[in-house]
This record gives sequence, C-alpha cells and structure tokens, in this order.
Amino acid sequence: MLIVMHHTATEAQIDRVLKAVEAMGLQAEPIPGSLRTAIGVLGNQGYVDDTTIRNLPGVRETIHVSKPYKLVSRDFHPESTAVQVGSAVFGADHPPVIIAGPCSIETEEQMLEGARIVKQAGADMLRGGAFKPRTGPHSFQGLGIEGLKLLRAAGDASGLPVVTEVMRIEQLPAICEHADMLQVGARNMQNFDLLKEVGKTGFPVLLKRGMSATLEEFLAAAEYIVAEGNNKVVLCERGIRTFEKATRNTLDLSVVPLIKQMSHLPIIVDPSHATGKRFLVPIMGKAALVAGADGLMVEVHPDPAKALCDGAQSLTGEDFTRLMAELESLKAVL
Amino acid sequence: MLIVMHHTATEAQIDRVLKAVEAMGLQAEPIPGSLRTAIGVLGNQGYVDDTTIRNLPGVRETIHVSKPYKLVSRDFHPESTAVQVGSAVFGADHPPVIIAGPCSIETEEQMLEGARIVKQAGADMLRGGAFKPRTGPHSFQGLGIEGLKLLRAAGDASGLPVVTEVMRIEQLPAICEHADMLQVGARNMQNFDLLKEVGKTGFPVLLKRGMSATLEEFLAAAEYIVAEGNNKVVLCERGIRTFEKATRNTLDLSVVPLIKQMSHLPIIVDPSHATGKRFLVPIMGKAALVAGADGLMVEVHPDPAKALCDGAQSLTGEDFTRLMAELESLKAVL
Amino acid sequence: MLIVMHHTATEAQIDRVLKAVEAMGLQAEPIPGSLRTAIGVLGNQGYVDDTTIRNLPGVRETIHVSKPYKLVSRDFHPESTAVQVGSAVFGADHPPVIIAGPCSIETEEQMLEGARIVKQAGADMLRGGAFKPRTGPHSFQGLGIEGLKLLRAAGDASGLPVVTEVMRIEQLPAICEHADMLQVGARNMQNFDLLKEVGKTGFPVLLKRGMSATLEEFLAAAEYIVAEGNNKVVLCERGIRTFEKATRNTLDLSVVPLIKQMSHLPIIVDPSHATGKRFLVPIMGKAALVAGADGLMVEVHPDPAKALCDGAQSLTGEDFTRLMAELESLKAVL
Amino acid sequence: MLIVMHHTATEAQIDRVLKAVEAMGLQAEPIPGSLRTAIGVLGNQGYVDDTTIRNLPGVRETIHVSKPYKLVSRDFHPESTAVQVGSAVFGADHPPVIIAGPCSIETEEQMLEGARIVKQAGADMLRGGAFKPRTGPHSFQGLGIEGLKLLRAAGDASGLPVVTEVMRIEQLPAICEHADMLQVGARNMQNFDLLKEVGKTGFPVLLKRGMSATLEEFLAAAEYIVAEGNNKVVLCERGIRTFEKATRNTLDLSVVPLIKQMSHLPIIVDPSHATGKRFLVPIMGKAALVAGADGLMVEVHPDPAKALCDGAQSLTGEDFTRLMAELESLKAVL
Repeated sequence: MLIVMHHTATEAQIDRVLKAVEAMGLQAEPIPGSLRTAIGVLGNQGYVDDTTIRNLPGVRETIHVSKPYKLVSRDFHPESTAVQVGSAVFGADHPPVIIAGPCSIETEEQMLEGARIVKQAGADMLRGGAFKPRTGPHSFQGLGIEGLKLLRAAGDASGLPVVTEVMRIEQLPAICEHADMLQVGARNMQNFDLLKEVGKTGFPVLLKRGMSATLEEFLAAAEYIVAEGNNKVVLCERGIRTFEKATRNTLDLSVVPLIKQMSHLPIIVDPSHATGKRFLVPIMGKAALVAGADGLMVEVHPDPAKALCDGAQSLTGEDFTRLMAELESLKAVL
Repeated sequence: MLIVMHHTATEAQIDRVLKAVEAMGLQAEPIPGSLRTAIGVLGNQGYVDDTTIRNLPGVRETIHVSKPYKLVSRDFHPESTAVQVGSAVFGADHPPVIIAGPCSIETEEQMLEGARIVKQAGADMLRGGAFKPRTGPHSFQGLGIEGLKLLRAAGDASGLPVVTEVMRIEQLPAICEHADMLQVGARNMQNFDLLKEVGKTGFPVLLKRGMSATLEEFLAAAEYIVAEGNNKVVLCERGIRTFEKATRNTLDLSVVPLIKQMSHLPIIVDPSHATGKRFLVPIMGKAALVAGADGLMVEVHPDPAKALCDGAQSLTGEDFTRLMAELESLKAVL
Repeated sequence: MLIVMHHTATEAQIDRVLKAVEAMGLQAEPIPGSLRTAIGVLGNQGYVDDTTIRNLPGVRETIHVSKPYKLVSRDFHPESTAVQVGSAVFGADHPPVIIAGPCSIETEEQMLEGARIVKQAGADMLRGGAFKPRTGPHSFQGLGIEGLKLLRAAGDASGLPVVTEVMRIEQLPAICEHADMLQVGARNMQNFDLLKEVGKTGFPVLLKRGMSATLEEFLAAAEYIVAEGNNKVVLCERGIRTFEKATRNTLDLSVVPLIKQMSHLPIIVDPSHATGKRFLVPIMGKAALVAGADGLMVEVHPDPAKALCDGAQSLTGEDFTRLMAELESLKAVL
Repeated sequence: MLIVMHHTATEAQIDRVLKAVEAMGLQAEPIPGSLRTAIGVLGNQGYVDDTTIRNLPGVRETIHVSKPYKLVSRDFHPESTAVQVGSAVFGADHPPVIIAGPCSIETEEQMLEGARIVKQAGADMLRGGAFKPRTGPHSFQGLGIEGLKLLRAAGDASGLPVVTEVMRIEQLPAICEHADMLQVGARNMQNFDLLKEVGKTGFPVLLKRGMSATLEEFLAAAEYIVAEGNNKVVLCERGIRTFEKATRNTLDLSVVPLIKQMSHLPIIVDPSHATGKRFLVPIMGKAALVAGADGLMVEVHPDPAKALCDGAQSLTGEDFTRLMAELESLKAVL
C-alpha cells in the first residue's frame, strides 16, 4: 500500500502516519518527493485494511497494491485449474465446453426436445432455469422443484450433465439432488451468504459476473467460494451495464484473456444474455472462443417464439446446429 | 406497448403480429407510417410480456409504455405513503427523518456512545450493521447476533428506533426480534427471494438502490415487497456506479424528485456511501434535503479513525452535531 | 509515481527499472515488500510521462500521484479565483451568478422578450446559442452571425452581459465582437485546439464538462486554457452519461464541493441540460447552490412550447421568476 | 413517433396534442388504452423534432421510431459500401484491411523503420499521428507539419497509403496534401464543424467512435460527413468508457455486427486504444475479425519502450508479424 500525503501535510502528521503503520505490525517507508511525501507500507501478506490510515489528518489518499483476493489469483496458484462436471471439463487446455438449453424450464416436452436438439448438435452440458430472477414480481418466476425434476430427466435422457441457478440458500439441498453444477446469477454475485453456502456444498459452481462488477469484485466473489474449500469455480462473463442500450448489455470480451492472466480459474462467456439479440449470439460466441473462453453458455429453445422467457435471444435448434459446425472449424485454427 | 416493424416487413408478417396480439387477449391497432408500420397494443392492465411478439419475423422492436411495477406507482396510488418506525415517520409531509450511527457494530461502548451522540444531536433513528457485506471474504464480516443485541441495547438506552441490514433469509427471525426496521442493501436489491421474505415479515423496510439499478428496476424491486402486502417501504438513494472514480459512487440526487413523482413511497438519501469522503457528507446531505428527500442516513462514529469499516466516510460526533444545526436552519426555508 | 513490479520480477528487471528512472533525471527508491517490489519515483515537478517505464519487463503497473494539471490546482494557487464578466462576478465569496435565457437564438422578439423576463426576475447574465451542436445534421443548426447580433442587442437592451457557445476557431472573432464570455460545450471539452485558441483571446470562458469526462480530464481541459495565460475560466457541471436514462444525464452534484477543494476556479451548474425535464430544473438548481455552486445556467424561454431546441427543459418566465424568489430565501441560510 | 399521455391527461389535453401534430403537417392516430392514451404520429419522412409536443400539458413522453440519420442507414441504402484508399479497400466483401504504425510520428528513422516492418509483415496501410490530442497541455503534442512529411515519405518508401488524424479545420489543406485518408478522433466525434469540413474535402474518412457515444450518435456523426456528399466513411470502434478500469476502455465488439446490420458503411476495430495493454491487442484483434470487422488499426512501434506516446499498448515488429500470420490462418475459416 502507498499512502499519499497532502502537499501541505506537516512533519507531525507524517510522523503520526508512520507510527500508525507500525502499530499495525507493518513497516513504513517514507518517500519524500519534491511536492509531497508518500509513504510505502511493507510487510503485509495481502490486502491491507486502510481504514485507520485514511482517517488520519494530512492523508490525501491510499493506493492499494495488493488485491482483496488471493486464493483465486494466479500469483499464488500458477497452474490453470480444470473444473470437471460429469463428462465435461472446463479449462486447463481442455476443448471449450458448450452449455446449451432454454432460459427457463417450461414443460417436459420442451426440456426433452431441447436436450435432444442440443445433444445432437454436440453440446456438452444442458442448462435450464427452475428458479428465475425476474425484474418484477408479476412475471413468470419458474417451475421450482418440479422444474428441477424435468431438467434432471432431460439430462439423463440425453446423457448431458446439467446446470441450474440457485437463488436462495434453502434451495440448495433440492438443487444439489438434481443438478450437477450450481449457477450463481449476476444479480447474486455479491450475495455473499449465498456464495459461502454454495462453496460449502463442494459442487462445481458457475459464477456469473454482476452487471456492474469490476474484475476485482468478480474475483473477490469467487474468493468467497474458494475460501470455503471449493475451488471448482467457473467464471462467466455475461455483459456489463453501460450507457449503450443497443444491446441488452455490453459484452466485455477483453476480460477473458485478462482474467486468464490474473486467475487460474476457467472463464466462459454467455453471448445470449450479453447481447439480448438472437442474430448476435453466434457471431459473438465465436469471437468469445477466439478471445480464449473455456466455453460458452447459449440459450436454445425448440420454439423460441413460445418461450416464456428471453425468447428473443434464444437460438432455434437449427441456429444452434449451424453454430456448432462453425465452432468446429474455428477450433481447428485455435 | 408499441410494436415497431422493420420497414421491409411484409403484409403477411404484419398480419401474423396482429393475430399474436389478439391471441394474448389484447387489441392490436396498426399504425401504417410512410416508412414502416407500427402496431399499438391496447387493453393491457399493466406490463405486457413481449416475448412471443419480439420473436416474430419482421418485428424490429417493442416499446413498453407500461412499467414492470404497479403497486408502488403514484398512478395507482396518488396519495403519498407515510412509513412509521417507532417515533419516526418517513414521508407524506413529515419532517425529514435523520438516521445516524456507525457503519458496523463493534463494541458495547462504541454503540452506547454512538447512540448517545447522535440522539443528543437530534437524530431520529439509530443505524448499525451486525451482518456486513464485504467485497472480499478476508475483511471483518460483522458481529452477527451479538451485534444485534448491542444495537437493541443502544437503541433502548437512547430511545431511538433501530435499523439494521439483513443479508440472508435465515437472519430474519433474529433481526425482527431486535430491530425496528429491516435494511436491504444495494448488493441485494435484486435478491428477489430476500425481498419476498422481507415483505412477508410486515416490518418496515429500508430498500437501498442497487449500484447499477435503473429507477424502473428500483421500483420493481420495491414492488416485490409491496406485492407481499407490505407497503412500509422507504427507498434509499446511495449513489450509482459510473466511470467517475473521484467519489466512491455518483450520488444521483435527481432521482429524489423523480421518484416522488413516479411513486407514493418515501425516499431518503445516504450521502456517506454515495460519496465515500467525510467532507462531502454534510454538504451533500443538505443538498439532498433541498432536493426533497424524506430523510438522510449518515454514518457517525465516536472515533472514525478506529472504525473497523468505512471510517473515512464517517462523521465524528462534532461533525454530526454541526450538520444537524445546519439542517435545522435549512428546514426553515424548505 | 509508484512503479509496482510483478511478484515474479527478477533482480535484473528491477535493476533495469531503477536505471530507467534515473535516466529520466529522477530518483528511484525501491520498496521491497513481502510479495513484490514497488519503486517510488521522486524528484518530479509534476506529472511524469510513464511510457518508457510501463513498457519494461517485470512492470505490473504505474500509479500516478501527480496529476496532468498544475495551474488550475489549488495546491499551487490556494486562493479562490474570481472571474468577472461585466457586472457579474463568479466565485471567491461573491453571490451566485444566475445565467438565463433560451437554448437557441430564434428571433429578435424572442431574444428581447427573453432578456426582459430574465432581467426582471433578477438574472445576472443572458445566454443564447447562435451556433448549435446537434446530434444529427438534419436538425436546426442555429442562426449564426445573425443570432450573435440579436443576442448582443438583447444584452444591451436589458443591461445583461452575454455568453454564447463557440464551436469552431473561425467563429472566434465574430463571437468576441458580440459576446462577453465564450462557452465551450460538453462535446468540445477535449477539442484541444479550440481550448488553446479560446485561451489566447483572453476572454472569460465557460467550460462545460464533457459527458464522460472525469474530474481529472475536466481540470486538464481547463489547464489548456489557463496555460495560454488566461485564468478567467468558469467550470460548469452539466450532467454525465451513465446507464440511467430516466434523466437526460446524471447530474453529478458532488463534483461541486470536490472541485472547489481541488481547484481555485469557480464552478457553476446547468440543471437544464443535466436533467432534461422542466420540473426538475428548479429543485436541482436549488440543490446545486446548497452544494456550493458559484452560479447556475438555466434555460428560460418566453414560450417553451414553440422553442426550436430543448423546449422540454426550458422554464417559462413565470417558472423562472418563482425560482429566483426561492433562491433568494435559500441564499439567506447559505 | 409515439406520444404517451399521462394517465391523468384530460380530453382537452389530448385534443391539443392531436392539433399540434396536425399543425406539423403530420397525421395523429389516437390509441386509447385502458390506462392511458397514446398517440401515433404518421406521415413523417424521418426523425421528427418533438420539441413542441413534449412541452404540451398531459404529455408523459415521446418515443422515437425514426432515427436522427438516414443517409448512412442500410434501410435506405441496402448494398454495403466499399471505401477505397489507394490499394486498400474497406468493406463489401473485401478482405480485412490492416492499418498499422506508431501512435505518434517521432523521427524519420522511426517512421521509415516502422513502415518497413509493417509492410513486410503484410499491413495494408500506415498510420501515424502528427497532431496529437493529449489530456493535458504539458504532454508531447506531436510534430505537426514536419510529421506529416515524414509520414508521407514513409508511406511512399513502403508503398502503403497513409492515414493521420485531423484536429482542427485549418490543418485540412496540409493533411490533404500529405495523407490518403483523414482520421477524426474519438474526442472530436461530435465536433460537428470539423465533420462538415472533412466531408467537404471528399477524402476518405476514418471516424472513431466517441468514448461515450451511443450507436445512434455514432451513425448520426457519420451522417454529417455523408450529408456533405462524401460517403467514403469508415467507422472505427475503439472502446467505450465504462466503470471497468482494468482495461483502458471497454471494447464493444458487439457493435460490429450490429452496425453492419444498421448501416452500409464499413467498420474496423482499434484493439490498441480499446485495451491499452499490449498482450491483449493480438487476441482482441483476432476476435474483432471473427465479429466481422472490415479491418483493424493496430499500434506498432519499432521500439515501444522509447515511444513518446502509448508505448504500453504498441506491438513490436515481432509481435505484429506473429499477429499477421495468425490473422492469415483465421481468414481461412471466415
């Protein structure tokens, strides 16, 4: 940590800061400049809580060099982590994992047909939401436990491992009974209690980036799960909120190589939620793989026009089959 | 809702959309323009789920006129709602309610002294966090139940009603036992299950705006609580996330008069979290009242330099006493 | 400047950075930490160009302590600067200056009547646009030189100094002939050549914040003008671009006290462009004064329904007269 | 355009709006809903200036269906436009054009060597800045006319067409003498007078997206150039400003396919300015081509560590040669 003093800071103020740093069991190294003094803080083993320092008179700002995460950092764990979910393996030189399926679980036919379609096209995992986070309380909220059973049956029928979203802690036993991987959605990325409990299950977790989460916050959220002894975390970029409204969110593909540099965890991309427009999904999915994503999560619905949720961004079976073929030829050059 | 067709849409495509609208039990009114056709949708009693429409061929976009909330809207409930919490009353022509206290509950002395200070200066309610949402798992996470008891004791000693944050559903019984008002924090604004359960308690709720929540989403989150039969909701603007990093968040004061126009619920402002800088808190607190806020929530700590959390934005007792005096003279002209 | 090395940086890499700093004529102070080494850079008289350093192997990041401006900083010029424009004086303990008038200059009658109204209500300066920046080329682009003459005549008739926007360098002679203060609009805040030429005129300048400009960039833009020997710069906050679309822009009132701490220049607020909604203008104008603004710029039109530009955010004469009365009572408590 | 009335709007207010629409020579179609009335506006040939309407009592909002641009829209010009600059052709089924070279022109050796390197690696055009937009006035501002001559000489020596940025109108004659294509930078995207004058030259123009420009504003800026009779406009996505600071800007690749759907103009991507980090440039450049970009603009410097500007994001000759080889194999599957 670096402490920057106001250029008007007195000797006494600087002295008090030095003493405060030492009281924290750390070393303080004054760096007198021509305009102002800065003070380097040494000896910390990680992120320093700077509260007591920032409050001292004469302090202009503190600048953190260490980050609020450690276990997920590549600095401390240089080898890439592979996360296995049934027959699918994310990361660490495995081919990209394609998760596909409808936004929400609606009927048995829809799920069986959806699973059949995506399996036939070559998908590696099946998705489907039983508990749905919806902006307003008057929209369809998902089938709940009944939906979980339909998802499991469709996964079994097609031979695909399944992932589904958990919204509250009490749902964990039921979801762990029926699913192979737990998804924490963007709106819950900083629901820290949920992260802890999800971590404790030991299940593989798909953690979506919050819509206004910085990379640092995203990795710190993953740290909550890993801190419970569960390093089976797959990150998922799904677009961030910006001033631009031409797409549902702004897909931030640069984070893929950036996260792979900063962390050992795998990262996949969800081009469906990021763009919100069907015609953009395949093209941005391909761009994501080129950017180094360890997989994709794509919404596919047997009949998008009848989808109860997010139909406008769902691919048809035909769209998805075409995309899978294009991904194949792309993989050849990656 | 307005459906805008592509300028290349065929008659058959337009016809199919008209039929789809009618199949939803609504009326469709074609509006042929010189460049393209639009279709007005009539007869809906609220927000229309446009999924099936947006997917039809020839549709460029759908534009919502109705909103995803209704119960919190002033359209349907023209009179302002007053929310009472013990001796404090928010909104509907009552004087602004000042909530003050430390960010987190740390010790008995800190809470008793903190409560004494803010009561003496004229605060109406006491705040303090027992369960703390922290970006990373390695920071102080709050005292939990023990903290709730300290908060209650400090409230009782000072005669102030108390508010504290709930982070997970299981905490509700304990918090309802010790607190007078439940706070849902910014990170949980779209934790919809928590909103529902908080609604069911019937307790007054302080709902903070998510850091990237639009006004529409903010009101739709409140709708979740009110839809459970609990209209004792006080909204709280606490700054939004933008590109500007000179302040912790960007305080969006314009939403105060805007929300008062759109909704009947009271709205208060938290200048401490919004700005993150102590010297900005009093001045922005005053500006908030001028903008029409029904109250303020201000972090006050007997000794900010020793605060375990957010000390840099906490006022001292002296700062707060001065602010309360300034607010008094300001109220005279409001 | 602080240079942070990767935790894997070798001794040789650190050594090369130390030498590079010294080659720039500065001192390098290594700060060996338990996880990584940082290097403090001393001896610089201002902002350091870090290009050569950031490129060296082993460097993770550079952190600037100095800012890209100096002349506008309060560090170097502790006394507040007052900017005089005819009878109006901005800043340094003078009462707030109220600039009012129509968005664009349309007709002689409109300007004379507009000037009469705002003068009678107590405004200090008259505004009006002769050259208009419009998003698309098919909108009304302003009356040009003819408009300048109408503005001057209206200013003379009412006894108010006038301010108008300059969009291109060639307009400067004409504008300097007819106006008392030059406005640089938000879209031109980083039109650096325009800033330099505006600086050379020696005229007072009203510099609006760019819609996505950080405070640092805003002050650095002002530095361009002051660097030409012209310190008659009045800053103007007019809202920034964020994800929130309920208002035209997000008015960032916290920058008012923040800029007054960082810079000696006056700062005013434009609530009309910030909010884009007439009913929000008076309330946010009052909040701005409470936040410490040295003045306001308000759009007033004798007949907003007939305005060629921005009518929806223009006050009527009656609205404005009421606002001025409210500002009077507010000033009593400031 | 759709006019949405408040649900409390009276018959008289609705009637007044209908009359106002008709007074504009357009047709008004009332759409009475169960909650409120909306009014469709028909007969307009493009974007409607809604000022007079929005101001009328009882109007809640106006919703635009038409856009503030027309000439650049694919609706009105379905065939893709190809833009030729010497031997390079952008768009309309031509292979991607790779523009490469240093951020700023520094010395004759640097330019000749830079041009030689990029030509040898297979670049199609040479870039280099003679006039540099810098945040603060104390940074290197470019070599000016002298730089233009060095650029021309390097272009001639290597046989590559050259592009350089224009910052002010007076520079146009000199730049048109020495360059083959004019670049308008992000900070000047809404410098409308510059756009008009650039349009009048008839030269090919590279128009960079403003850092907070919406797609609609970006296309409307291009419309300014095309409205002068010059349709040789190549758009360039270079990242937008968001809350995320891990990259210099947030590269918004989804706009590439989106713009290609909305407009007939070619669009390229600048991964150097978007990311600001050298190691991200090749990977995001490849992703951009997969997203459908008609070309790339990449910063390459013979010796980035000595670059006077943006060295940290410049590729070395070796990096660039590797990137070009990777692009070749990628093109095989596109």
